Amino acid sequence: MKQNKIAVIVGSLRKESFNRKMARALQALAPESLKLEIIEIGGLPLYNQDLDDDPPAAWVDFRERLLKSDGFLFVTPEYNRSVPGVLKNAIDVGSRPYGNSVWNGKPGAVISVSPGAMGGFGANHHLRQSMVFLNVPTMQQPEAYIGNAAKLFDENGSLTNDSTREFAVKYMNAFAAWVETNTSDRLESENA
Amino acid sequence: MKQNKIAVIVGSLRKESFNRKMARALQALAPESLKLEIIEIGGLPLYNQDLDDDPPAAWVDFRERLLKSDGFLFVTPEYNRSVPGVLKNAIDVGSRPYGNSVWNGKPGAVISVSPGAMGGFGANHHLRQSMVFLNVPTMQQPEAYIGNAAKLFDENGSLTNDSTREFAVKYMNAFAAWVETNTSDRLESENA
Amino acid sequence: MKQNKIAVIVGSLRKESFNRKMARALQALAPESLKLEIIEIGGLPLYNQDLDDDPPAAWVDFRERLLKSDGFLFVTPEYNRSVPGVLKNAIDVGSRPYGNSVWNGKPGAVISVSPGAMGGFGANHHLRQSMVFLNVPTMQQPEAYIGNAAKLFDENGSLTNDSTREFAVKYMNAFAAWVETNTSDRLESENA
Amino acid sequence: MKQNKIAVIVGSLRKESFNRKMARALQALAPESLKLEIIEIGGLPLYNQDLDDDPPAAWVDFRERLLKSDGFLFVTPEYNRSVPGVLKNAIDVGSRPYGNSVWNGKPGAVISVSPGAMGGFGANHHLRQSMVFLNVPTMQQPEAYIGNAAKLFDENGSLTNDSTREFAVKYMNAFAAWVETNTSDRLESENA
Repeated sequence: MKQNKIAVIVGSLRKESFNRKMARALQALAPESLKLEIIEIGGLPLYNQDLDDDPPAAWVDFRERLLKSDGFLFVTPEYNRSVPGVLKNAIDVGSRPYGNSVWNGKPGAVISVSPGAMGGFGANHHLRQSMVFLNVPTMQQPEAYIGNAAKLFDENGSLTNDSTREFAVKYMNAFAAWVETNTSDRLESENA
Repeated sequence: MKQNKIAVIVGSLRKESFNRKMARALQALAPESLKLEIIEIGGLPLYNQDLDDDPPAAWVDFRERLLKSDGFLFVTPEYNRSVPGVLKNAIDVGSRPYGNSVWNGKPGAVISVSPGAMGGFGANHHLRQSMVFLNVPTMQQPEAYIGNAAKLFDENGSLTNDSTREFAVKYMNAFAAWVETNTSDRLESENA
Repeated sequence: MKQNKIAVIVGSLRKESFNRKMARALQALAPESLKLEIIEIGGLPLYNQDLDDDPPAAWVDFRERLLKSDGFLFVTPEYNRSVPGVLKNAIDVGSRPYGNSVWNGKPGAVISVSPGAMGGFGANHHLRQSMVFLNVPTMQQPEAYIGNAAKLFDENGSLTNDSTREFAVKYMNAFAAWVETNTSDRLESENA
Repeated sequence: MKQNKIAVIVGSLRKESFNRKMARALQALAPESLKLEIIEIGGLPLYNQDLDDDPPAAWVDFRERLLKSDGFLFVTPEYNRSVPGVLKNAIDVGSRPYGNSVWNGKPGAVISVSPGAMGGFGANHHLRQSMVFLNVPTMQQPEAYIGNAAKLFDENGSLTNDSTREFAVKYMNAFAAWVETNTSDRLESENA
């Protein structure tokens, strides 16, 4: 069985971030067909087109790691009703230089996690709008707006309630199927 | 006559940025009641809540400069159908620590400038969504989606055609009136 | 004291609509400076530009009633992560024929009410995007995303808990101030 | 070869609508694997949940036709920076009663056409947000924002310039592949 490598990108730099905890919980819960790896974004210099000819090493490294992935899983809080700047910067860095986007054509999914009731709806959909341009076929259902995040994890970062764990399992299984369907390698080999 | 200080924030770090040129052109065109100053955002470390207790000097300086402003003018490109990460990061930095946002209650406006035909519509409206949360009363009309930016400036960065210059004058006059209407100082003094 | 007439537009046609109940509760709670009147939209034929020369009577009547208003309060559910078609149709009818929009230049506010946890965030912000084009200065704060609506009203349609009632009072007072600030009549009389 | 039936939904009721012309042009240009049929929406009563138990005949008929489709192609103008009410109403009608949505799980695509330069960007992305909830896997690339529509068609409604025709052919071929990839029948038969 082929295992698909999924780059997991967490939209918060805070050490005790609920989103980081969620990302780790998803790593543990994912089906065997997916291998999740968290890719760090806190060390990426702010995108500046003037640096494209001689890019910072952190950009080069980030892009190379994403190129080796088969798909993307974004796990993000909402900052000011939109995508955190730190996450958007990572997306911008990965999308350039123009014509060499690392995101192009690989499947993705978006999970938003917030301490409030609304579960980061604004960040979730703004991020999806970028995915259209970046040509990342993005899973529609189940949607994942995970609110009241402060109550979800125990001191070890494990999910404390069954309904969230069940949702997470269902979500990751659906994502595995989505990746399988929308991976062009598979489609190409069928056409071969 | 009271002059309102407007912090101008440019969403691109590129030296020859069309948005920076537009910001400079607007400085020259603005009515006397507005004093526009470009505030740089390229040196702001990525927002990380863990640093709130001992914030980087660049964050502190940025916040102090915005606190001295009477309003905000955003001039931004669109990156991947949304707000550039570098601009969103600046907005996030200014909005924290929670409860101490520098944006709160002051009037603003959004101009998007792009080399393509669509004039940065996606960035413009995503930015407006953040302004709702940040309580920045944002001018609705005229909207400013400025496309085909490569044709707008001469080698000195001056606007080359009359229709764009006329629109810019009209826009800045409307913004001056918007700032006047939505400045709470004025309202407070009336109530005194 | 001048009383401002506010047209209240409810985004659901259902008789027992939570949004209709909320609209009625707000009528009762609004400060004296506002007079809220619910304007019905269920009888408006679907907008079709071919009818502009000989418009349906229901369109004409709707437009006339809105022209007599000093501001707009939208109270709406979310349908399929966006504005209900029935509400958007009313907005479209009011905006035409081109150049004769009844919305132009008057202040507004948006409240979304839903039975789920997220309080109609998607409808709320999509509606705000239309308000930009329609030149309706729209109150930013407080935002109103009212979730779990099934628990909010008693059998007479009264608000059952104090915190929601207090929020509603605060919201309407803020809206009264917003209308006062952004009403051009007032500004004109000051300039006289 | 299996032919996929695509329901084409046009967001304008105007007889000489550019979007209707575009829909017809796409019918003529589509590859053999797709059969496009325009489904009318102008006769659908406004959605009202109170009618769910005894739905209007026009709703029943509309839903039945969509259930026979293998995918959806939306061709729409922008009204007031969002989806036309008439189109959103059709989407709402198709999505109910709750749990019986006709949209669920079938692939789709969104084309926006406008007389202005921006090509209906606002309508395009608001519609995509609904597609997330409705579980319509929606093609990301190519995006189709078709501006300056008044210049695109001759008096017979044919596309007048080669670049638009070439884009349309490319778009429909990409959509045919998208439908093929995201049709669950195909996936099921593979699993059989």
